[in-house]
Amino acid sequence: MLELRLVQGSLLKKVLEAIRELVTDANFDCSGTGFSLQAMDSSHVALVALLLRSEGFEHYRCDRNLSMGMNLNNVSKMLRCAGNDDIVTIKADDGSDTVTFMFESPSQWNLSHSVFFFFFFNLWCLCVEWETKIFKNNFWLGQDKIADFEMKLMDIDSEHLGIPEAEYHAIVRMPSSEFARICKDLSSIGDTVVISVTKEGVKFSTKGDIGTANIVCRQNTTVDKPEEATIIEMKEPVTLTFALRYMNSFTKATPLSSTVSLSLSSELPIVVEYKIAEMGYIRFYLAPKIEDEEEEVKPQV
Amino acid sequence: MLELRLVQGSLLKKVLEAIRELVTDANFDCSGTGFSLQAMDSSHVALVALLLRSEGFEHYRCDRNLSMGMNLNNVSKMLRCAGNDDIVTIKADDGSDTVTFMFESPSQWNLSHSVFFFFFFNLWCLCVEWETKIFKNNFWLGQDKIADFEMKLMDIDSEHLGIPEAEYHAIVRMPSSEFARICKDLSSIGDTVVISVTKEGVKFSTKGDIGTANIVCRQNTTVDKPEEATIIEMKEPVTLTFALRYMNSFTKATPLSSTVSLSLSSELPIVVEYKIAEMGYIRFYLAPKIEDEEEEVKPQV
Amino acid sequence: MLELRLVQGSLLKKVLEAIRELVTDANFDCSGTGFSLQAMDSSHVALVALLLRSEGFEHYRCDRNLSMGMNLNNVSKMLRCAGNDDIVTIKADDGSDTVTFMFESPSQWNLSHSVFFFFFFNLWCLCVEWETKIFKNNFWLGQDKIADFEMKLMDIDSEHLGIPEAEYHAIVRMPSSEFARICKDLSSIGDTVVISVTKEGVKFSTKGDIGTANIVCRQNTTVDKPEEATIIEMKEPVTLTFALRYMNSFTKATPLSSTVSLSLSSELPIVVEYKIAEMGYIRFYLAPKIEDEEEEVKPQV
Repeated sequence: MLELRLVQGSLLKKVLEAIRELVTDANFDCSGTGFSLQAMDSSHVALVALLLRSEGFEHYRCDRNLSMGMNLNNVSKMLRCAGNDDIVTIKADDGSDTVTFMFESPSQWNLSHSVFFFFFFNLWCLCVEWETKIFKNNFWLGQDKIADFEMKLMDIDSEHLGIPEAEYHAIVRMPSSEFARICKDLSSIGDTVVISVTKEGVKFSTKGDIGTANIVCRQNTTVDKPEEATIIEMKEPVTLTFALRYMNSFTKATPLSSTVSLSLSSELPIVVEYKIAEMGYIRFYLAPKIEDEEEEVKPQV
Repeated sequence: MLELRLVQGSLLKKVLEAIRELVTDANFDCSGTGFSLQAMDSSHVALVALLLRSEGFEHYRCDRNLSMGMNLNNVSKMLRCAGNDDIVTIKADDGSDTVTFMFESPSQWNLSHSVFFFFFFNLWCLCVEWETKIFKNNFWLGQDKIADFEMKLMDIDSEHLGIPEAEYHAIVRMPSSEFARICKDLSSIGDTVVISVTKEGVKFSTKGDIGTANIVCRQNTTVDKPEEATIIEMKEPVTLTFALRYMNSFTKATPLSSTVSLSLSSELPIVVEYKIAEMGYIRFYLAPKIEDEEEEVKPQV
Repeated sequence: MLELRLVQGSLLKKVLEAIRELVTDANFDCSGTGFSLQAMDSSHVALVALLLRSEGFEHYRCDRNLSMGMNLNNVSKMLRCAGNDDIVTIKADDGSDTVTFMFESPSQWNLSHSVFFFFFFNLWCLCVEWETKIFKNNFWLGQDKIADFEMKLMDIDSEHLGIPEAEYHAIVRMPSSEFARICKDLSSIGDTVVISVTKEGVKFSTKGDIGTANIVCRQNTTVDKPEEATIIEMKEPVTLTFALRYMNSFTKATPLSSTVSLSLSSELPIVVEYKIAEMGYIRFYLAPKIEDEEEEVKPQV
């Protein structure tokens, strides 16, 4: 039996929007550790890895490891029916071929009263070990509107790739909105982006029929808000070329985090990582393009 | 001679947007009582009934009953030319084959000054019975911009159905935005909605290729704002099935009212009613679907 | 060598959006006076004239007159990559076949500190005549993000029309948003607009299959804000007919100015002018339509 209760249900909606463009069908893996997904995109070029740790859920019960194959467009259709303040519960019985998404939207009245109620009730629950049963029946929170969506599961063949920990030549941390803006801007000029990292900054370049573009972001740690900083950790300078189409797909995860980190090494796929606050991450892996013309665009940050 | 002056002109725009999707051509009927419309949708499945009582107009003159056939898309085109703060006047001469929509947008200056002016002027008008002539000439309000749109009328055959007052098994009053959201959400899963009313609440269910969905709204009167309440008046439980396509069309009337009422009886069409503040209502009638599979979805609120 | 630095870079974006619908390729002419453009639309019916005077730029260097042919859609693609607060610099070397657009987005930190810095630095620059070199190297403002876009220039044949100063029968000054709204509203009814100016006001009329429309704007100078005034300078009444399609294209310049002026004479093209604050203007010229039916629509403001 699986039962995962997530208070900020909107987070699940954002996760789905982040990967839906890249991946059509995928297995969601549940274990005692957390809720995770690993999938290649349909052209087998990019890899997505998602982890939501069990500690991030308000309630997390997973009696035995479970792999649930879902069509992400269908999951997205169902999650779009959840309000942004809704509490989302994912349920599946062992051996069942369906998964249930339950959305609870507490009314204003209930919300204000249930804060105290919830606190003392939980204390009491811990004593009498009633919690699971109570959560299941939902009598303790007087929701005005409860929606449950039952979806058929699919059988999806997939092999789980072991991704080794690697040392990267350079890691760039920057505002995620800035990175999304750069990828969008460059793709109006060209198809690929050359990312060059030096100590001073990171340069994103492209070339197309109508001309060339270079965008330089300098290392900048003296900002009022830490999420606005651009921080470069570099062992050696690195210059790599990537398809902008995939970069633009990755930036669909921007609403999940205010910062993004790019890990680059000359012989490894780039890792574009968005942290999911206190719960985990979503990571995109993409192999660099090997191009002869790459040398023409000289790094000159 | 017909002359109807409506201060909140945006209301007319909303009325048109509410029925335009369902009905293409329709007769607007004017009498001493008010301005009304009754029309079937093009597939003769749903019925719309609109009433704007004469008391709701700032000025209402209708010398004799008049039925004006209009293409609602054309009316909508003209009304979209009215600003949201515009005062709208509808004019037609007896026997004329045209109707005129006049939009007045008082300037900021005029608006602030004319409040006092309007009050005393009207008092005086009442004494000397000059009102009509003055309104007609519009010299009393120094509008900066006056627009008039003249539209040709059409001959439309239509029979006016007498809708008998009926007793309903259950009447559900709920926030109109909530109802609109539910119809929209369910139509991403299935084509029909099963509405089941019990004392505890109302359940909206659907079934489609990707799964099933159930949304339960509980009776809830302890809310801060009366328009957020969900109130169920029930004589006996009732379960009926409707096409979601029509329900979604009806919810185009949501901007007209913060609440909607659903009147259900096992042998009558559902009535979906939006009250129009202090003026009247817009009512949609839709016959239930008779389905064998209906029994499969058991009501279990 | 050409180097133009414009602090409000968003202004250039607005200029491009204003003319892009009308003109595909055009020569931008740079001289000591300013940055200008004159172009006919593709059907050779309307003329656009743009002037940005050199005084409006923070830094303006143009060693010799230069005419740069550009595809406006490509320029627009590049300018859309500039943030709304970005400083835009246009650079071209003499004899070069490319132009470079540089966008600098000062960070919040830099922005707040550089206000003082900028003031005293400029004073000092004036003394030592270092300004150009410093601006060129950009070391004085610690931008976090600098983007440069290089675009190939095109050879475009064009003859520069001398537009003689003319006396107009009537000049109407009105809020640009009002004018845009009127053109948009009328084009949902008909294809042409008849503009009639009398001392009392200006009337915009149209006629189409579904009916007729008249919008009258009265002379109105007693407004709180000068940009809301409608001012009519008239030597003699004038009634002229124009294609609404072009008028609607002209109103794409609405974001550039809160007012628009229409200059009308019975034997001259209308001039629709949007002033660009303290820098220049954008003017659209359109010949009136000679129509027999014109007389049917009588001016009756």
